[in-house]
Amino acid sequence: MTILDQHPELRERLHELYVHLHQHPELSMQEHETAALIEERMTGLGYEVFRCGGTGVVATLVNGEGPVIGFRADTDGLPLQENTGLPYASTARGTLPDGTDVPVMHACGHDTHITAAVGAATLLAQDRDAWAGTVVFLFQPGEETAAGAEAMVADGLWERAPHPEVIYGQHVWPGLAGTVEMTRGPAMSYSDAWRVTVHGRGGHGSQPENTIDPVVLAAHMIVRIQSLLSREVAAQKAAVITIATIHAGLKENIIPPVAEFTINMRNLDADVRQHLLAGLRRVIQAEAMASDAPEPQIEELYTFPLLVNDEAETGRVVDLLRGVLGEDQVIERPAVMGSEDFGTLPDAIGVPGVYWFFGGMSSEVVESDEPVPTNHSPFFGPVMEPTLSTGTTAAYEVLMSRLRVQ
Amino acid sequence: MTILDQHPELRERLHELYVHLHQHPELSMQEHETAALIEERMTGLGYEVFRCGGTGVVATLVNGEGPVIGFRADTDGLPLQENTGLPYASTARGTLPDGTDVPVMHACGHDTHITAAVGAATLLAQDRDAWAGTVVFLFQPGEETAAGAEAMVADGLWERAPHPEVIYGQHVWPGLAGTVEMTRGPAMSYSDAWRVTVHGRGGHGSQPENTIDPVVLAAHMIVRIQSLLSREVAAQKAAVITIATIHAGLKENIIPPVAEFTINMRNLDADVRQHLLAGLRRVIQAEAMASDAPEPQIEELYTFPLLVNDEAETGRVVDLLRGVLGEDQVIERPAVMGSEDFGTLPDAIGVPGVYWFFGGMSSEVVESDEPVPTNHSPFFGPVMEPTLSTGTTAAYEVLMSRLRVQ
Amino acid sequence: MTILDQHPELRERLHELYVHLHQHPELSMQEHETAALIEERMTGLGYEVFRCGGTGVVATLVNGEGPVIGFRADTDGLPLQENTGLPYASTARGTLPDGTDVPVMHACGHDTHITAAVGAATLLAQDRDAWAGTVVFLFQPGEETAAGAEAMVADGLWERAPHPEVIYGQHVWPGLAGTVEMTRGPAMSYSDAWRVTVHGRGGHGSQPENTIDPVVLAAHMIVRIQSLLSREVAAQKAAVITIATIHAGLKENIIPPVAEFTINMRNLDADVRQHLLAGLRRVIQAEAMASDAPEPQIEELYTFPLLVNDEAETGRVVDLLRGVLGEDQVIERPAVMGSEDFGTLPDAIGVPGVYWFFGGMSSEVVESDEPVPTNHSPFFGPVMEPTLSTGTTAAYEVLMSRLRVQ
Amino acid sequence: MTILDQHPELRERLHELYVHLHQHPELSMQEHETAALIEERMTGLGYEVFRCGGTGVVATLVNGEGPVIGFRADTDGLPLQENTGLPYASTARGTLPDGTDVPVMHACGHDTHITAAVGAATLLAQDRDAWAGTVVFLFQPGEETAAGAEAMVADGLWERAPHPEVIYGQHVWPGLAGTVEMTRGPAMSYSDAWRVTVHGRGGHGSQPENTIDPVVLAAHMIVRIQSLLSREVAAQKAAVITIATIHAGLKENIIPPVAEFTINMRNLDADVRQHLLAGLRRVIQAEAMASDAPEPQIEELYTFPLLVNDEAETGRVVDLLRGVLGEDQVIERPAVMGSEDFGTLPDAIGVPGVYWFFGGMSSEVVESDEPVPTNHSPFFGPVMEPTLSTGTTAAYEVLMSRLRVQ
Repeated sequence: MTILDQHPELRERLHELYVHLHQHPELSMQEHETAALIEERMTGLGYEVFRCGGTGVVATLVNGEGPVIGFRADTDGLPLQENTGLPYASTARGTLPDGTDVPVMHACGHDTHITAAVGAATLLAQDRDAWAGTVVFLFQPGEETAAGAEAMVADGLWERAPHPEVIYGQHVWPGLAGTVEMTRGPAMSYSDAWRVTVHGRGGHGSQPENTIDPVVLAAHMIVRIQSLLSREVAAQKAAVITIATIHAGLKENIIPPVAEFTINMRNLDADVRQHLLAGLRRVIQAEAMASDAPEPQIEELYTFPLLVNDEAETGRVVDLLRGVLGEDQVIERPAVMGSEDFGTLPDAIGVPGVYWFFGGMSSEVVESDEPVPTNHSPFFGPVMEPTLSTGTTAAYEVLMSRLRVQ
Repeated sequence: MTILDQHPELRERLHELYVHLHQHPELSMQEHETAALIEERMTGLGYEVFRCGGTGVVATLVNGEGPVIGFRADTDGLPLQENTGLPYASTARGTLPDGTDVPVMHACGHDTHITAAVGAATLLAQDRDAWAGTVVFLFQPGEETAAGAEAMVADGLWERAPHPEVIYGQHVWPGLAGTVEMTRGPAMSYSDAWRVTVHGRGGHGSQPENTIDPVVLAAHMIVRIQSLLSREVAAQKAAVITIATIHAGLKENIIPPVAEFTINMRNLDADVRQHLLAGLRRVIQAEAMASDAPEPQIEELYTFPLLVNDEAETGRVVDLLRGVLGEDQVIERPAVMGSEDFGTLPDAIGVPGVYWFFGGMSSEVVESDEPVPTNHSPFFGPVMEPTLSTGTTAAYEVLMSRLRVQ
Repeated sequence: MTILDQHPELRERLHELYVHLHQHPELSMQEHETAALIEERMTGLGYEVFRCGGTGVVATLVNGEGPVIGFRADTDGLPLQENTGLPYASTARGTLPDGTDVPVMHACGHDTHITAAVGAATLLAQDRDAWAGTVVFLFQPGEETAAGAEAMVADGLWERAPHPEVIYGQHVWPGLAGTVEMTRGPAMSYSDAWRVTVHGRGGHGSQPENTIDPVVLAAHMIVRIQSLLSREVAAQKAAVITIATIHAGLKENIIPPVAEFTINMRNLDADVRQHLLAGLRRVIQAEAMASDAPEPQIEELYTFPLLVNDEAETGRVVDLLRGVLGEDQVIERPAVMGSEDFGTLPDAIGVPGVYWFFGGMSSEVVESDEPVPTNHSPFFGPVMEPTLSTGTTAAYEVLMSRLRVQ
Repeated sequence: MTILDQHPELRERLHELYVHLHQHPELSMQEHETAALIEERMTGLGYEVFRCGGTGVVATLVNGEGPVIGFRADTDGLPLQENTGLPYASTARGTLPDGTDVPVMHACGHDTHITAAVGAATLLAQDRDAWAGTVVFLFQPGEETAAGAEAMVADGLWERAPHPEVIYGQHVWPGLAGTVEMTRGPAMSYSDAWRVTVHGRGGHGSQPENTIDPVVLAAHMIVRIQSLLSREVAAQKAAVITIATIHAGLKENIIPPVAEFTINMRNLDADVRQHLLAGLRRVIQAEAMASDAPEPQIEELYTFPLLVNDEAETGRVVDLLRGVLGEDQVIERPAVMGSEDFGTLPDAIGVPGVYWFFGGMSSEVVESDEPVPTNHSPFFGPVMEPTLSTGTTAAYEVLMSRLRVQ
């Protein structure tokens, strides 16, 4: 039983909003139309709104004396060609910072986050007698690049908005729609990303002896990095290092002067993280030395912090949502190796945060033999219901549990 | 002493032609303006001209009874940004077959080949009393992609042009300008190129266990290929395998479904070549199997044949050019690992071919401590003289040695 | 406060026993003198004794009506040269199954296990009025090779000995002497060991092209196996694969026909184990294929089962020992990646087992900056006290907690 | 037609000598019984004999005025178990310098060298009227370890023996028996051997994070070394690097502190050799750094010099032997990648040396589809004839060609 069962026409409007957002995804830190739409909606509901961190939107509703509570929804899409086959699939395009024209898709489901937040915000705005206090909605841009939360804080978020005593957030994922899952304590991993530029010396492919081959060197680096994980991290410590991109060379017979690859590393433990960051530098430098190559350049792209859910508050939210959604629908689970900059917002003012996942998949998809498409897949397409109702209900009920007038 | 010392105003015109060609390089099989220019010049000299193989130009001058002799010059540029600092450096751009816009440069010096051929053709046309017979100039496109000679043959070259009893060709290179070098027997290597598409299964960078990582797989392939050379080829057999391009992935936290790299292999021995072609397939398939990945796709891009200089005719040319250019200026040398599709033209009609190199570097460059920029380098810029005079003289004298009226 | 404080002369005799055992370690399944000594001691205490599984000793004391309770102590040493510098360091030698003469050392501390078991057995034998029931001491050989527990069961252990309702066991380790640590549920990992024989084709080192080099092949296998862990196991799943031995070749210029290495793999999850067992076979076969080598032989050396502590009984033991040894001295801890065949004994009759660790290091060692020598190190030398008193007390008190007459 | 056709009973005695030598091989620098036997035989023939370099034997016959000519035969066996199935196969054993007991076999055929040298020495001794001058037979120990020639020179060889104006030597190999092959100029490669001790930090196999794994590190070194050859040596330059031995670890669950492997490298070019010696150090050190391991130890085991046959004298020998053995039986061939310390003997006094190969295989073996067993194979067993007659004849005729009284 979700709150939207009692508000069928709000549900309909949320579906329309969702479809619109889904068709108009924007790249990280370029969420201009999305921000404008959110501003318009939230203003229309009576919220006081300001822009923050470029395309971030902060919407506050002061409703008498009472606690200040925060809720964060992130808003950016991803550079992927949607392949869901949905009638409302995205055909949008965008421009990466390096000028490349790319397709854009809400492949991480942030459109459901915006929709659920607007849904909860609407319910709060419609029934102001039921609660007292202040609610602060933080529509955060640039989550995918770990840039948005920091940009909002740097842009004076907490000088301009009231300080909540707790901030909540949520994320759709490939669980069964209607369910919610969350973790006490460390819940989402550190995530560090680097760009490594491997310098060699180019030349003709027939004379490698006159070159320093950056392709073979990069291959040796990538292979050698695997041994870091297998030999230098204790078996029960979580760690993953992914090299998802590598680019070098234009012509099959010209050894290029440079190869470039990226590293993404995730951990749940500060010591393991520090050891591996140092280990990666060590391996990269040593392999360059083995090829008699110049020192490679390492550019730090971002660091997602460890997302730590407040243990007590998480316990309270679990109990609360079990009451609302049903005992079986709310699951406590181990940490995930995905990452989030959500924690940056509560951490900046030293207040607790709680962050949960809500499912987006139909039971047919979940129970099928096919692998379930995950976030960031071109096939990731949440079912609208009960996904949106569950997200809206979770947001609304958790907020109301702190604001409700008894 | 070169033939152009007696023709100073021809030298001047050849310099102008060279500068023009240098500034207007075109990509392989797209040499439209170059072909038009050659047609115009050769027609102006009285040659009978036809197009062949798209942008190839065949120019024949029948001058009475006598032998038919061929001379080949290749015409294409390369997708590089010229960095020679020359006043006439190229700023041209072109479009690769995949649609990419790229800078273009005569980084392999084919502009000197055209110029020298036009120079020799001019001298022959100007003094028809001195010789008798037929000369066939083959301006061949697409040497860099091993496509041009085959395209000309496939387009009916030898049904349309008279069959020479021998065909000559030459190439500028980073030797001392004024010198000529050549090899009896096998002179330039086989060269095979493949594009390998490594299929994995994409997914989120935090969950490699749900993917088949094509980047790590490609790195293992590249590393494993090195052992093919080091363990499966006899120490005294020449072989080189270069992987000059690799491309995979767009985002640092999305493991891509596919990685793509190219292989370029060169040999001087048919057995070694066959062993390594099979070995490459074996390694690529086995490494895919080690990752439980689908079979990779291998696309054969081209095969350059072994260029074999006719031994007797090469000996004759060496002696001849020593007489013309000076004993020390003509050097016999071992085979080179560079490749050429020159051999395709004489091989198609079973006549001998002879191919030599002429130097393009000043003595300052050759004697300096700096590495000499080689063909395909953005810094490769031959000095105009004595490079062009030497190329023109060599072409002219070798042709005349067979055509001259005693 | 340990039970031996009240029995100072027993403590003295146990110290003598320990020193003797430490000086006379024997290799797995060859514990002949050790078994004879145990038999003599236990018989002297009034236990009924029988041999089982070769060098295993089962000692039973029936003391009236009451529960049957089991306690297991393992007895074998390791092929290492002791380097502790202790006055009673081992100088013993033994013969491996392959005939190699090796030094032997109680580097895993099984001498403390025997001593503590004999200590507890003595206390039980001395004060039979305090308890009623039957106690079964299982002195198990060959723990290091996973052979001993199976050998005892195969030799009819449970047809010959009374069936305990629960079996306990303990292990010394490099924790602080005086402390005890244990884990509820899965407590010690699966451990599988293989010997891999890599077949190549030998020949002269100057002509690798006429050989299939098993050394380079084995190196590629070892490197490739690292990627199994880094790419095919989820970040939060425990797994470790160690290749601790490799042997190939006798002479630096003769490529040998064969290389041999061992694999040891540990996991806490049956699915991960199955995936990696299959993955190891896949990688080994694929790399052999990459070298065009014959299929390597894989010999399965042993499989240690997952050791799972009964959750309820473990909880009871934790509480009990906290009462005896002090609240801070008994620690609940996560699983360890070490392995044991202890579980084979209770599993064979479907009764619960509980297994704990007791510390063996002085506070100086534990607090020093130097790495603490661990089990299987030539430097591993437990301090006698409070190590032996703690082990004896833990064994005695846990047994008495089930046998004591109220 | 060989010289032994005229001396059937000498042939018989040589066969007996050969069988005896074959059954009594001795390890390098331990050729005590072999040396004693040679001394006895040569003394019996009237040669003046002295020991040199431990187990080296120098036997001189002064026969009037005339040139001094040298002939060298090496005498040592190899640590292999003979597997030829010959009735006179070796069952001998020996002790390596490290104390290991090993089987010993004349797997390199030095027994044929001794036999042929004794045969030639006998013919010279028997017919002193036919020649004049001095012949010096150098029976050299320890060729396999590059120790013997140096040991003889260091032991004052050239202070004690007359200086020959040229020194000859020969080696049996898997060519057709009856044939001889040789190379003008550089004929046999440089050969360098190292022992590399890779230091890590040992520990339990379940906790690699507390160790520095020398096995994985050694595997990375071995893999990385392959890229040295494939990327840093020009395609037409001969080079081979073999790692024929690796040894680490005793127990599958104890990561050892150390791994040890050997390197054998061969080249025909001093610059390539220097580059690769430096490159090997670079790779070994860099890989240790990548593992955060201590600097590995590199022990230089030996260096075989480049064997360069005097060009003019080789030409003379070719012509001479063609006259004796038949035009087709004497083949000029490219250099081989095998190595020899033969050159050390003439180089020490600056005189020319000439060294050739004589075949040892029957035509059935050579023509069969099976790979021919090569030197250092346990299956290497030359047929006695015409192998021994050819070796004896070549030695005798070449010596006589300089000594014969016209």
